[in-house]
Amino acid sequence: MNAKTPKTAISPTRAENYSEWYQKIVRASDFAELSGVRGCQILKAWGYGVWEQMQRDLDRRFKETGHENYYFPIYIPLSYFQREAEHVDGFAKEMAIVTHHRLTKNAEGKLVPDGELEEPLVIRPTSETIIGEAMSKWIQSYRDLPLLLNQWANVSRWEMRPRILLRTAEFLWQEGHTAHETHDEAMAETKKMLDVYAEFVQDYMAVPVIKGEKIAAERFPGAVTTLCIEAMMQDGRALQAGTSHYLGHSFAKSCNIQFQSRTGTLEFAHTTSWGMSTRLLGALVMTHGDDNGMKVPPRLAPYQLVIVPILRDDSPKDEIMAYCEQLKADLLCETLDGNPLRVKLDGRDIPSTDKRWDWIKKGAPLVLEIGAKDIANHKVCFTRRDKMEDGKNFEDRATFIGNAGAILTDIQHALYNAALAFRTQRLVTNIKDWAAFESYFSKDADNSFTGGQGFVRAKWCGDDASLAKLEPLGVTVRCIPFDQDGQEGTCVLTGQPATQEVIFARAY
Amino acid sequence: MNAKTPKTAISPTRAENYSEWYQKIVRASDFAELSGVRGCQILKAWGYGVWEQMQRDLDRRFKETGHENYYFPIYIPLSYFQREAEHVDGFAKEMAIVTHHRLTKNAEGKLVPDGELEEPLVIRPTSETIIGEAMSKWIQSYRDLPLLLNQWANVSRWEMRPRILLRTAEFLWQEGHTAHETHDEAMAETKKMLDVYAEFVQDYMAVPVIKGEKIAAERFPGAVTTLCIEAMMQDGRALQAGTSHYLGHSFAKSCNIQFQSRTGTLEFAHTTSWGMSTRLLGALVMTHGDDNGMKVPPRLAPYQLVIVPILRDDSPKDEIMAYCEQLKADLLCETLDGNPLRVKLDGRDIPSTDKRWDWIKKGAPLVLEIGAKDIANHKVCFTRRDKMEDGKNFEDRATFIGNAGAILTDIQHALYNAALAFRTQRLVTNIKDWAAFESYFSKDADNSFTGGQGFVRAKWCGDDASLAKLEPLGVTVRCIPFDQDGQEGTCVLTGQPATQEVIFARAY
Repeated sequence: MNAKTPKTAISPTRAENYSEWYQKIVRASDFAELSGVRGCQILKAWGYGVWEQMQRDLDRRFKETGHENYYFPIYIPLSYFQREAEHVDGFAKEMAIVTHHRLTKNAEGKLVPDGELEEPLVIRPTSETIIGEAMSKWIQSYRDLPLLLNQWANVSRWEMRPRILLRTAEFLWQEGHTAHETHDEAMAETKKMLDVYAEFVQDYMAVPVIKGEKIAAERFPGAVTTLCIEAMMQDGRALQAGTSHYLGHSFAKSCNIQFQSRTGTLEFAHTTSWGMSTRLLGALVMTHGDDNGMKVPPRLAPYQLVIVPILRDDSPKDEIMAYCEQLKADLLCETLDGNPLRVKLDGRDIPSTDKRWDWIKKGAPLVLEIGAKDIANHKVCFTRRDKMEDGKNFEDRATFIGNAGAILTDIQHALYNAALAFRTQRLVTNIKDWAAFESYFSKDADNSFTGGQGFVRAKWCGDDASLAKLEPLGVTVRCIPFDQDGQEGTCVLTGQPATQEVIFARAY
Repeated sequence: MNAKTPKTAISPTRAENYSEWYQKIVRASDFAELSGVRGCQILKAWGYGVWEQMQRDLDRRFKETGHENYYFPIYIPLSYFQREAEHVDGFAKEMAIVTHHRLTKNAEGKLVPDGELEEPLVIRPTSETIIGEAMSKWIQSYRDLPLLLNQWANVSRWEMRPRILLRTAEFLWQEGHTAHETHDEAMAETKKMLDVYAEFVQDYMAVPVIKGEKIAAERFPGAVTTLCIEAMMQDGRALQAGTSHYLGHSFAKSCNIQFQSRTGTLEFAHTTSWGMSTRLLGALVMTHGDDNGMKVPPRLAPYQLVIVPILRDDSPKDEIMAYCEQLKADLLCETLDGNPLRVKLDGRDIPSTDKRWDWIKKGAPLVLEIGAKDIANHKVCFTRRDKMEDGKNFEDRATFIGNAGAILTDIQHALYNAALAFRTQRLVTNIKDWAAFESYFSKDADNSFTGGQGFVRAKWCGDDASLAKLEPLGVTVRCIPFDQDGQEGTCVLTGQPATQEVIFARAY
């Protein structure tokens, strides 16, 4: 980055090439980069910092709803997978498998795997099988229920076409696993955790979502019911932002999770699982990023305010730095949602224009620039990352400090509203037949930032065979939204009578 | 656990069989249990809760000293290890190796590994090689230094003789990795992080440590200098509680981490690494556990106070529960070190005696028992876990609430002082020759709780060959303590003149 400001900090722009823009912004925002290891990524300081904020808030919500954190082994014996046929079919093609436990030098002095394991171990793609095994030991009686646990962990899915943050061979996530006495309790848990996710994604990530249920073809392998939240990215594609599964007796039977009921009978427990991952960092980028870089919602920003001192050769450097230190100290006494503001004073020895652009690209919500003139005038110069078009704002020092929390709240809401407006614009509800449907999704071979494609909300008769018509378009049913009008209409795929509305879209 | 109080909650006791006591207390305290997967453990709610408190405090310390969190891939290509000969030699025998990326059904319908990888991947035993690879890309100029990063992660070392919490095939840890311009800066970082560790272990874990340097034979594979903190367990054995390594140019050369210096020359960076793991949960158990279970230091306890309502058949249940809820609310307004107290009201539907013993075994610092009589008398009945011999204490409600933080501080100090007194008693400094040394360590084939063995602090000449004499005793040199008297004396192994004192002990 040189001192000459480019027209846009990210090139190509979203309109020029959305997919390449995505690769560039992920890197430029210091969120992540691909590593030398095939399909794997490095989460960098700023991106990982956002993930830490996400973890903190989600973890609080999980604990408030009665869940406790555990940690289970990453290694799952192959035999555990053989017990649940649907589950293994769903994951078998993308599993990393450990077969040896040491390296030895061969005759040519080359290191080779040695010490073959009696039973190969699968690196967990998800932990239903291994946690089910433990639950079967821990649960004896209805008094041991509900068992409500969660784990923060890395998981592995061997992706053939990796895409940074969205599809990588390894990613970080949390997975909740619970066991209950009854179907109703387990379904209530499944719904409750979907609500927890939806609140978090909307209120903290500032990403509007549609809550709904997956159709059978899109369910988690082994689930009876999969609930999900779906978000729209800036190319109109859908991204599944979180899922919550009612697993019925599938894993209770394959793992033998049984308990003595209140009436003395032996019953299978009803289990659930639900998860959210670092994939959400990708959703954040594709919802709020623009051609100058990221915009991180204030509630998730590792630093909500960044102070850049303007130091010219003739500036009174010590005086400016001392002033900035004091400004930082004063801002640290202010709050957002009752928590102290997170403030960074960027003291690096590089030009202040470079620093400013660095934080614009990262998406710090407020970037302050403080030079000798601002100090003399008792002013704070600041840029709202969400309103770059307003340019630099000047405010009295004391007024700015007192308003800082309120400005951040305003940015949080503005980001949500902008994302909601975008989605509203590209959520189509007036497509009623196949001709219109096909024409809508055929406009381009692929979605784009400027293209008109997004979500189509329309009636579907529920006939699985009809889904074959969607394949050539690369479109899938994202979910059956919870809010339904209940009116009878016509299936957009078959022309048959249909009552239920679903969301159709291309998806990540 | 039945209502009849056993003589000791953990059987066997430490004196009866220390090693078996350890297995029992880890399980009884709900810290961890072995999983069905060979050599792997499950961290359970209470143990993982302690780890969360440890993480929180350590993470704060790392950030205060300028480090940022990243996340690097768990998969390390085999070729990365080939670059640093010493490093690979140190870890080759205990590596989990991924060789395939999917499962397929064979002719008999059995799942078998398929999709062989072109290059096997090692599950990280530590991340110097993969982080070094990234650093070589990120570091170009002295302006990019120092680079101070940390990661929280799982690592794998294939242990032939697993021991819960101490040696497992997978464990959780943090690993700091830094790069610097000069030797002096890197050494200062190595020492600083050792100090951070020592402060944490002493002030938070209430475990006294000896700070020192490892002798050459005990260094981390690839390190130039390894600093460590050593703690004494209740059988007199040493446990290495944290290490900080100055890596010199070892990894800078094998990973090619070079930078343009202030004078324009191309130089290799000086790197460091330092780590602490869930092994510390084992150290906590073996320092503070007794024959009734664990004692968790208040600063690390997931709940510092647990309220057990005493509900008999004729008790006014609603009134007692309401009173306990209010007591909890009032205690939540009190603080320890400026943080709100962590309070649990145990409302489970099991006998209150069972609840009391459950929390005694887990080691909650203060267990409160509240019945109708206590409410009538405005009293709080409480047990200090560190002073079970004092029995139950009764205190006026208001007084107790106001003092709760102070009592917890007192417990924190009492635990440290007890551990220090134990170590002082079993740290021997008057052994001056081989005969006395051999006799001291020969008393038993193994250490024990009642045995006299512990640490021997004595002069050693530094001759590596002399270490062979220690092997039959199973004793090693734990460290060269930083505090040295500098007096010339006689080497306890060879009888030669020696100035340097070292710590000899059996170790975990």
